[in-house]
Amino acid sequence: MKEKMKAAVMKTLGVIEYEERPIPTVKEDEVLVKLEYVGICGSDMHYYETGQIGPYKVEGPFVLGHEASGRVVEIGKKVRHLSKGDKVALEPGITCGKCEFCKTGNYNLCADVEFFATPPYDGVFQEYVSHKADLCFKLPESISTLTGALIEPLAVGMHAVNLGKAEAGQTVVVTGAGAIGLVTMLASIYKGVNKVIVVDVLPKRLEKAKELGATHVINGAEEDALKKIMELTDGKGCDLAIDTAGSEITVNQMIHSVKKGARIVLVGYSSSEKMSLEMNLALDKELTFKTVFRYRHIYPMAIDAASSGKINLEGIVTDLFDFEEVPEAMDSSSKQKADIVKAVIKFQKGIDKP
Amino acid sequence: MKEKMKAAVMKTLGVIEYEERPIPTVKEDEVLVKLEYVGICGSDMHYYETGQIGPYKVEGPFVLGHEASGRVVEIGKKVRHLSKGDKVALEPGITCGKCEFCKTGNYNLCADVEFFATPPYDGVFQEYVSHKADLCFKLPESISTLTGALIEPLAVGMHAVNLGKAEAGQTVVVTGAGAIGLVTMLASIYKGVNKVIVVDVLPKRLEKAKELGATHVINGAEEDALKKIMELTDGKGCDLAIDTAGSEITVNQMIHSVKKGARIVLVGYSSSEKMSLEMNLALDKELTFKTVFRYRHIYPMAIDAASSGKINLEGIVTDLFDFEEVPEAMDSSSKQKADIVKAVIKFQKGIDKP
Amino acid sequence: MKEKMKAAVMKTLGVIEYEERPIPTVKEDEVLVKLEYVGICGSDMHYYETGQIGPYKVEGPFVLGHEASGRVVEIGKKVRHLSKGDKVALEPGITCGKCEFCKTGNYNLCADVEFFATPPYDGVFQEYVSHKADLCFKLPESISTLTGALIEPLAVGMHAVNLGKAEAGQTVVVTGAGAIGLVTMLASIYKGVNKVIVVDVLPKRLEKAKELGATHVINGAEEDALKKIMELTDGKGCDLAIDTAGSEITVNQMIHSVKKGARIVLVGYSSSEKMSLEMNLALDKELTFKTVFRYRHIYPMAIDAASSGKINLEGIVTDLFDFEEVPEAMDSSSKQKADIVKAVIKFQKGIDKP
Amino acid sequence: MKEKMKAAVMKTLGVIEYEERPIPTVKEDEVLVKLEYVGICGSDMHYYETGQIGPYKVEGPFVLGHEASGRVVEIGKKVRHLSKGDKVALEPGITCGKCEFCKTGNYNLCADVEFFATPPYDGVFQEYVSHKADLCFKLPESISTLTGALIEPLAVGMHAVNLGKAEAGQTVVVTGAGAIGLVTMLASIYKGVNKVIVVDVLPKRLEKAKELGATHVINGAEEDALKKIMELTDGKGCDLAIDTAGSEITVNQMIHSVKKGARIVLVGYSSSEKMSLEMNLALDKELTFKTVFRYRHIYPMAIDAASSGKINLEGIVTDLFDFEEVPEAMDSSSKQKADIVKAVIKFQKGIDKP
Repeated sequence: MKEKMKAAVMKTLGVIEYEERPIPTVKEDEVLVKLEYVGICGSDMHYYETGQIGPYKVEGPFVLGHEASGRVVEIGKKVRHLSKGDKVALEPGITCGKCEFCKTGNYNLCADVEFFATPPYDGVFQEYVSHKADLCFKLPESISTLTGALIEPLAVGMHAVNLGKAEAGQTVVVTGAGAIGLVTMLASIYKGVNKVIVVDVLPKRLEKAKELGATHVINGAEEDALKKIMELTDGKGCDLAIDTAGSEITVNQMIHSVKKGARIVLVGYSSSEKMSLEMNLALDKELTFKTVFRYRHIYPMAIDAASSGKINLEGIVTDLFDFEEVPEAMDSSSKQKADIVKAVIKFQKGIDKP
Repeated sequence: MKEKMKAAVMKTLGVIEYEERPIPTVKEDEVLVKLEYVGICGSDMHYYETGQIGPYKVEGPFVLGHEASGRVVEIGKKVRHLSKGDKVALEPGITCGKCEFCKTGNYNLCADVEFFATPPYDGVFQEYVSHKADLCFKLPESISTLTGALIEPLAVGMHAVNLGKAEAGQTVVVTGAGAIGLVTMLASIYKGVNKVIVVDVLPKRLEKAKELGATHVINGAEEDALKKIMELTDGKGCDLAIDTAGSEITVNQMIHSVKKGARIVLVGYSSSEKMSLEMNLALDKELTFKTVFRYRHIYPMAIDAASSGKINLEGIVTDLFDFEEVPEAMDSSSKQKADIVKAVIKFQKGIDKP
Repeated sequence: MKEKMKAAVMKTLGVIEYEERPIPTVKEDEVLVKLEYVGICGSDMHYYETGQIGPYKVEGPFVLGHEASGRVVEIGKKVRHLSKGDKVALEPGITCGKCEFCKTGNYNLCADVEFFATPPYDGVFQEYVSHKADLCFKLPESISTLTGALIEPLAVGMHAVNLGKAEAGQTVVVTGAGAIGLVTMLASIYKGVNKVIVVDVLPKRLEKAKELGATHVINGAEEDALKKIMELTDGKGCDLAIDTAGSEITVNQMIHSVKKGARIVLVGYSSSEKMSLEMNLALDKELTFKTVFRYRHIYPMAIDAASSGKINLEGIVTDLFDFEEVPEAMDSSSKQKADIVKAVIKFQKGIDKP
Repeated sequence: MKEKMKAAVMKTLGVIEYEERPIPTVKEDEVLVKLEYVGICGSDMHYYETGQIGPYKVEGPFVLGHEASGRVVEIGKKVRHLSKGDKVALEPGITCGKCEFCKTGNYNLCADVEFFATPPYDGVFQEYVSHKADLCFKLPESISTLTGALIEPLAVGMHAVNLGKAEAGQTVVVTGAGAIGLVTMLASIYKGVNKVIVVDVLPKRLEKAKELGATHVINGAEEDALKKIMELTDGKGCDLAIDTAGSEITVNQMIHSVKKGARIVLVGYSSSEKMSLEMNLALDKELTFKTVFRYRHIYPMAIDAASSGKINLEGIVTDLFDFEEVPEAMDSSSKQKADIVKAVIKFQKGIDKP
């Protein structure tokens, strides 16, 4: 296939321009996917604004975007489980399959991963991508490809609640009601917890959390979150706390507000390298801190969750942009952080808005 | 029994005097134990020097000491598993048996625990104690009551390696080579790990660690501990790190020196309330931080370990004092922290020195 | 309190007569409960019909009944967490608190348990019982004491799904749709599984299962259960199978119908001592067989489940009898096993029927 | 490379003849290994004698042998972690890397595995094999390639003790003292258990077990194994039992001889399809039965174990045959099952006997 496609390419910090590129050739274990939706993630914003996350540095032209869905349009000759026309959600990381981490099922820790939109690997703000077939998960016809693009963030939330060992009947606190906070909340609801308490300081986000199923929301700028959590748990403290805010203040609140022996899961990166934490209190309570990095083998469960009717995944989307509007989408996302909870790029005009 | 015994009573900060007290009466589920050895723990030192640990405050006369062994001299009428003359190690915490934590086996988190030498409960720097029979664990005749008194600190180390999931074949780093560091090292050896690397800054402690089985010791004041650990693990990092030093510096080194996905166990309290930790790096590596508080149901295993011949528990003792010398013992321990790794009070003249 | 109460006493096999007995005296750690509902369990039937279960033999007059709820009418002087008038569900087993199993949280394995209606300990087909306060769990006013009496069987089902590690999104097969099969199904639903397939041979039970939330029911007498399960799982097999039927045939079907690496939980006792199982196939699939015995520390979660609105616990009750009708209740239960799924004794006329 | 090598080919049941075959060509992710030792496994014997194991059927000429070690003589162009001359142990199963089981780390359950000497895939009773480099594990120079060939059976034993959660201090019973029984025993010792009790009926095997570290051996034909185990555990029962004999009798003994709540691991296939097991007693004791299939990601730990000096892996070998003697080796192994515990084929004359 020698035809051309459009790609939205980040030329330099804060500048995205469209280029024509050849439509990729499909290898024997790949499928060619015509993209339908790609979400904008905090990491995309970070590369767009600063060109760097930790050791990963954008050098030269770079394509953002890794939360993707689409339809299969061509199939590599060894691929059996997919057909042309299938809706798919794309898991963005190709791992080596040979290292200790891959072999033990912890492939999210593989050092040789090639991950969409993590330099030097391009992402998918482009019309087509050829991707490993085993990383393209078929979506049931009953769910939209918009939902399909949200499987990636949901996978982050589900991995967090899995490592947190969330269970039916528990009370969970989620701090931060951005997109990751919301999917973590949804994943908790899907697990059957009795109460999900969401803490943030932005009223719009808390409304969203409430709308999508939070049993309680706390505006940490207006009330004493710790006091409130203790009230809501009859003084017992919560069973599990998950921080998506990356804030030292909220993590210390968690140390106070969880039960003895509980788990605190850290999902959100801090804006400073270090967090100053009340570890002596944590020792007295024998707490466990579980940090999480991406996810592993969770797409099938996440797709099941999204199609179960138990959670409203599309509900986290606040803004849709056409593929022609990627520059505007990035720009708005950068400037209106308080208002845009989740923006998604829509590739095809004919597709219904949510 | 109306006879009298001697008790070494802390009258005020830093002042211990002997008192005559009645030998305790034995209740039906208790045994009366004539003490033979009681270790001096860091927490005893802390109460002696400052009168307080966290919320626990010494008020009025107070008896220190909670690492105890002795011989049973009288038996409550409901007690079946012990006989007069049995050597026993005493587990120092009486828990409620009724709360969520007790019922789920996490009794070390019981809020209603009565623990020797934790205010307001007296400890056992006294000749006799009547104690719950199910907390008096019979020692095989093959091991000494000096070893018996060290079961308590060993239990701390074993609980730490259990929560750290130490396994045969692993490489474990232990920071801090005080008494708790040493028992943690011994517990790791007992678990069958391949390498135990011990880090401290005091040469005398490192010698002790080496003598008792550390495969490698690192003087953090003289060499770059992180660099050395990476060398000793062929650049792979260690499988498990256990901090007994309570130092922010060593815990941050651990974040760097463990493998991805690894556990870091925190046993040591920090001298400041908070620790400033590199959580972003921890997130990238998906690390788990496990804090530990005392131990639970570990005396039988600890006694098995001590009698297995696989570890040299008596080897951690650097100083023995007679019961008549408790004031001197406390005083020396307070003033010579670099030299005294582990001091133990010996109650009976006829007992052999180690 | 010297007053009298009525007790329904099994005088000999199949014969129950009422006796007057003194209302029990309340010890300091007990509460006196006026019973409101007590369920009839398969084990009650077994003692009634044969006088024996395994090593436990009825000798002399014996009171059956261990699935109980009521209201607190008097309080021991050390009891703090309950008040007169509280509705409570009674956990029937008093354990020693001192053995290895109690201390590690596995108190259901305590050898010294005193369990209602397990000889030589009387059960609660009587108007009052004085019971350990920590085994009397307060029910929220929002749920009935009929539901309270069903907490005990629900605890069995929840323990089974816990040991089976049932998780949100899974497909679970439950064989046997008697009372325990139904509560196991309800417990699975509460855990958030996507599909619960219930297999039995009695149409009435399968209807009940369907009514209470089974996503699919299979009449094993009419269709090939294995074939049907494979169809319902797109040929993948189920994630977890729980047998409450105690049937060798259904357990072997499970070995065929679960996924590789899956768990099979056995709850139901077989009518013969042994089961002949296809262990070679189990080895090829690396299956785990988890047998369960009663439950441990699950009443609080079971009460939360029952009051969550997510499951309909009262729905399992097919027959209510007044306390005056215990002989008839036992007799009917014995003769109409196909029709009576769950019978419950109602102690007080004024209480509403379900 | 167009040169020729010799292969010992099973032509039909019980008949092995040598053929010349081309030395395999090395693909980019493979290394060419010149074999040094290949063990004879029970499954090799089974194919040799019956041509079939479960669904796997030998059709046409077939090469046996899957417990292999050798030296790397050529390297695929993408291979980085191995060099010519390296000693390696070969993990025999190539898995798909894409299925649910591979991605979750349970690759031993992969349905698409290509496993040496499991039809239709040839084994390695041949001079050279080209194998996936990530399945060739470098051996330290300190251990022999004879030990290297025994890593495969040791992996089976280590996987069994891992799934059995063997821990330092426990008492483990192993039934069957054939090669798999012995490696299971060695793996238990490596894990640090306090007692390993080995049960068999062949005196020669029991001697071997004793020589290699069993703390106790029981000849089940001469004494009551159950009674003896209870004696050796002071009536408490053992913590873990592992059956490598595939015998219904021994598994039922285990149900009696383990502690409540314990694990029974089944490694050995039964000669009949089914085993008749005392499941009612298992239910009363809340036992877990864990069946195991091969192993997963265990070669690095097994190599560490073999080189730790803690176990004597070569000690299990009773018979060495030259590569020219494969027919005799198979024949003897078939006829002298009571005498030959473990036979190994030695490929190169210059290599020392053990």
